[in-house]
Amino acid sequence: MHVGWIGTGLMGEPMARRLLGAGHRVTAHNRTAGRTGPLVELGASAAATVAEVKGEVVITMLPFPAEVMAEVLECAAPGTVVVDCSTTAPALARTWAAQGERRGVAVLDAPVSGGPAGAGAGTLSIMVGGDPAAFERVRPLLELMGSTVVHHGPPGSGQLAKLVNQTLVAGATLAACEAYALAVHGGLDVDRVRESVRPGVAGSPLLDFLWSRLAEGDLEPGFKLDHFTKDLRLIREAAGELPMPGTDRVAELAERVRAAHGGERGTQAMVRVADR
Amino acid sequence: MHVGWIGTGLMGEPMARRLLGAGHRVTAHNRTAGRTGPLVELGASAAATVAEVKGEVVITMLPFPAEVMAEVLECAAPGTVVVDCSTTAPALARTWAAQGERRGVAVLDAPVSGGPAGAGAGTLSIMVGGDPAAFERVRPLLELMGSTVVHHGPPGSGQLAKLVNQTLVAGATLAACEAYALAVHGGLDVDRVRESVRPGVAGSPLLDFLWSRLAEGDLEPGFKLDHFTKDLRLIREAAGELPMPGTDRVAELAERVRAAHGGERGTQAMVRVADR
Repeated sequence: MHVGWIGTGLMGEPMARRLLGAGHRVTAHNRTAGRTGPLVELGASAAATVAEVKGEVVITMLPFPAEVMAEVLECAAPGTVVVDCSTTAPALARTWAAQGERRGVAVLDAPVSGGPAGAGAGTLSIMVGGDPAAFERVRPLLELMGSTVVHHGPPGSGQLAKLVNQTLVAGATLAACEAYALAVHGGLDVDRVRESVRPGVAGSPLLDFLWSRLAEGDLEPGFKLDHFTKDLRLIREAAGELPMPGTDRVAELAERVRAAHGGERGTQAMVRVADR
Repeated sequence: MHVGWIGTGLMGEPMARRLLGAGHRVTAHNRTAGRTGPLVELGASAAATVAEVKGEVVITMLPFPAEVMAEVLECAAPGTVVVDCSTTAPALARTWAAQGERRGVAVLDAPVSGGPAGAGAGTLSIMVGGDPAAFERVRPLLELMGSTVVHHGPPGSGQLAKLVNQTLVAGATLAACEAYALAVHGGLDVDRVRESVRPGVAGSPLLDFLWSRLAEGDLEPGFKLDHFTKDLRLIREAAGELPMPGTDRVAELAERVRAAHGGERGTQAMVRVADR
């Protein structure tokens, strides 16, 4: 299949690599032109602008997709399936699907979870909303990138499922950071504590990741505070009237840690809420 | 070995069963006398009072152990190892260890995680604090009940490790409940959402348990709100000056849900924070 790819960052590049590795033809674009280099070396063509991106399927993977999606929808030929793998507002996904429909372009929301490691290994969880027929057309591509590919319903429902996931991530992140601080405060050997809690009911891959980084004093991002706070704002917006007092507290603390330590830090910097 | 056992509730009974099954001699006591019946059927002797509980090792498993432990320490013969599997304050565990020491009784704190299912299967995580030699003596017993048995250091450190675990449980519980409410609020099929989020970074056995109960509308406890709020108070106390703003929010909401719905409800009742 000929796939247009927009956004070749920490997630987009390894995802596009999976398609190239399976023999698909990829035309890739990134706002910073040099960033497509590694994909071009693997056989992709580079597109200098969004308008030059061609493909039966166009996949976008961007931290803030709004502007680019407007342009993608303008440029896409009728019959194209556009798959937005970015995490964004369900309401926005619904708007794009409706805009696409008027021009004969199917727009699926298909945000992913699993981080750069999952992207590289093709083990992402991909949460899809939108036209079922379009989903069936692109499913083989999605299954190259993800080991869990689930269709959740109409446009926006993939985004909402992702926000449900991010609600879990948000609470678990703050809890992992506060638990780590408590262990250190109490003079425990954190490695031994991890041995005790990892097989427990609240053990998760996220706990492993955050505690490893914290033990190394490493605040480099697996998941940037800029994106964490963005997701928390999207959750609040999608929740509307629904009270989510725990998640709201995480959001408030995350904004504070981001302001103090910078949005490029990883979410393990949430441990700094315990700084005195 | 001859083991005295005090507290044969949801956790204590299946734990004591594991010792009987391995051929140990068990003398069991429960405040409510009839409660030892199932163990007696398996070969245990019943003790009508704490004073009548005999054994080289005495194990306690109680929701609120303070009164009983005072009596256990009074009655225990020198040379006994007392193992408190209850979850309690690290400061209290330190006091008991010092009291025991003066009488030639080793007191270990050895709280567990894994719930009734883990107790039955012998797959608990057991977090031990106290004298290393006493730990080595009882380790074979602990390994019948737990698949993860870790010594964390001096008296109280097992309790602190447990409170670190409960910090993770607390945050993950509230996040799971709010995430569930968001999925329902957004009209998603919760089973499909679970399929997407379970293999993700924040997926955990706790998530499976809580979402299953919520999907069935079942508020029966795996873990009672009475014990959840107790643990949250212990965390606050052990944290002292350490700020834990996320955990504090969980504690505040848990007290509110407990007041409104009753302490006998399971922690999945935390979903009620989202009631409008």
